[in-house]
Amino acid sequence: MVKYQQIADEIEMYIEENALQQGDKLPVLEGLMAHFNVSKSTITKALELLENKGVVFQVRGSGIFVRRHRRNGYRSLLSNQGFKKELEDFHTASKVIELEVTKPAKEIADHLNIELDDDIYFVKRVQYIDRQILCLEESYFNRSIVTYLNKEIVSESIFDYIQKGLGVKIGFSDVYLHAGKLKEEEAKQLCLESEEPAFYVESVFYLTSGQPFNFSKVTYNYEQSQFFIQTNGHFS
Amino acid sequence: MVKYQQIADEIEMYIEENALQQGDKLPVLEGLMAHFNVSKSTITKALELLENKGVVFQVRGSGIFVRRHRRNGYRSLLSNQGFKKELEDFHTASKVIELEVTKPAKEIADHLNIELDDDIYFVKRVQYIDRQILCLEESYFNRSIVTYLNKEIVSESIFDYIQKGLGVKIGFSDVYLHAGKLKEEEAKQLCLESEEPAFYVESVFYLTSGQPFNFSKVTYNYEQSQFFIQTNGHFS
Repeated sequence: MVKYQQIADEIEMYIEENALQQGDKLPVLEGLMAHFNVSKSTITKALELLENKGVVFQVRGSGIFVRRHRRNGYRSLLSNQGFKKELEDFHTASKVIELEVTKPAKEIADHLNIELDDDIYFVKRVQYIDRQILCLEESYFNRSIVTYLNKEIVSESIFDYIQKGLGVKIGFSDVYLHAGKLKEEEAKQLCLESEEPAFYVESVFYLTSGQPFNFSKVTYNYEQSQFFIQTNGHFS
Repeated sequence: MVKYQQIADEIEMYIEENALQQGDKLPVLEGLMAHFNVSKSTITKALELLENKGVVFQVRGSGIFVRRHRRNGYRSLLSNQGFKKELEDFHTASKVIELEVTKPAKEIADHLNIELDDDIYFVKRVQYIDRQILCLEESYFNRSIVTYLNKEIVSESIFDYIQKGLGVKIGFSDVYLHAGKLKEEEAKQLCLESEEPAFYVESVFYLTSGQPFNFSKVTYNYEQSQFFIQTNGHFS
């Protein structure tokens, strides 16, 4: 992890540990430089990162302030947002339904920018949060990038493993959202009725090089589908 | 508009006009500097802005590339994302159901950080896209910031008016999403049946100073609720 990212993490910790709230002011730049014992440019880059993540906002000539207008039960939609500690407050678990090496359908191949005869890992699992059914996840990995998965790995956080275990560097993602009615198979897995509301999230994840390596379709139990996004708003 | 924002807009136009696609490479920094006749720092800030908006991605030592993996019928969830021209391709209209100056309920006052006896504008309208019912919107404005609205204004883009007409500077927003079942009143307005799926988006919009000025609850017709987000992914 680059120095300024580490400092950004530490500033987040500082906000948590001091239970700072929406609108609370952070120490001035000089104070942060002294506290973390780093240069002005490192602090500036760390604060820019936190602003992009929606953790703080900067008011020209006035200072740096905390953003933390959270609602109970709402989770961050974007995996790169949100205080780590708050995410850890939820107990999560996975039940693996399928894990296999296979060939992609046309739609999957297009999203992953691979050929129809390239190998992919297909993972299907049900995820639980606080012992409630959260979602049904179908996830497709380009096997030339995510070279190895097994049942143990996919019962935990796959993204943790591919970053820390395989050294994959995740760049950015495209996220597609829509609501609809549950199909019979989805309803069965979520222990709901067909035609009940569903909240669908489809994502394509890219390496820092811009190459896609994962496409996933997640069908959320609508009763558990509460998400927030803190935008960093660049309005023109 | 600040210079680098203007250049960012022009780079977006350049991408559109040249129909650049996902993964297409932009000219090198020197080329962009010459083309737009601005300094390196202006181009750099413009590109950072576009990276934050999810319009481009930068690969260290390799260049700047276009992100444009759009799906037909999907609109940008965050109003600060997406190519302007693509947004203009949709025909939109509003039917105003209610517009009044009133006092906020507790929940609204909390979101707007005002007192129960402060004045707010309440706007309720149905929005159409391509002549289909898109959503039911209930929106609350702090009247000490959004000092004037009338029926003509609220049948068009309220945000356009408050930025250009009132000079309000919008900073950032918190967005809350969930799915659920339509209540009777909502279903009536959307010409759907009660208990059909609903896609709810609640937002709090803040000034650049951090003061909230608008809270809105939008209930989308699930058949029209197709959104995308291009994250700028800062994974740690």
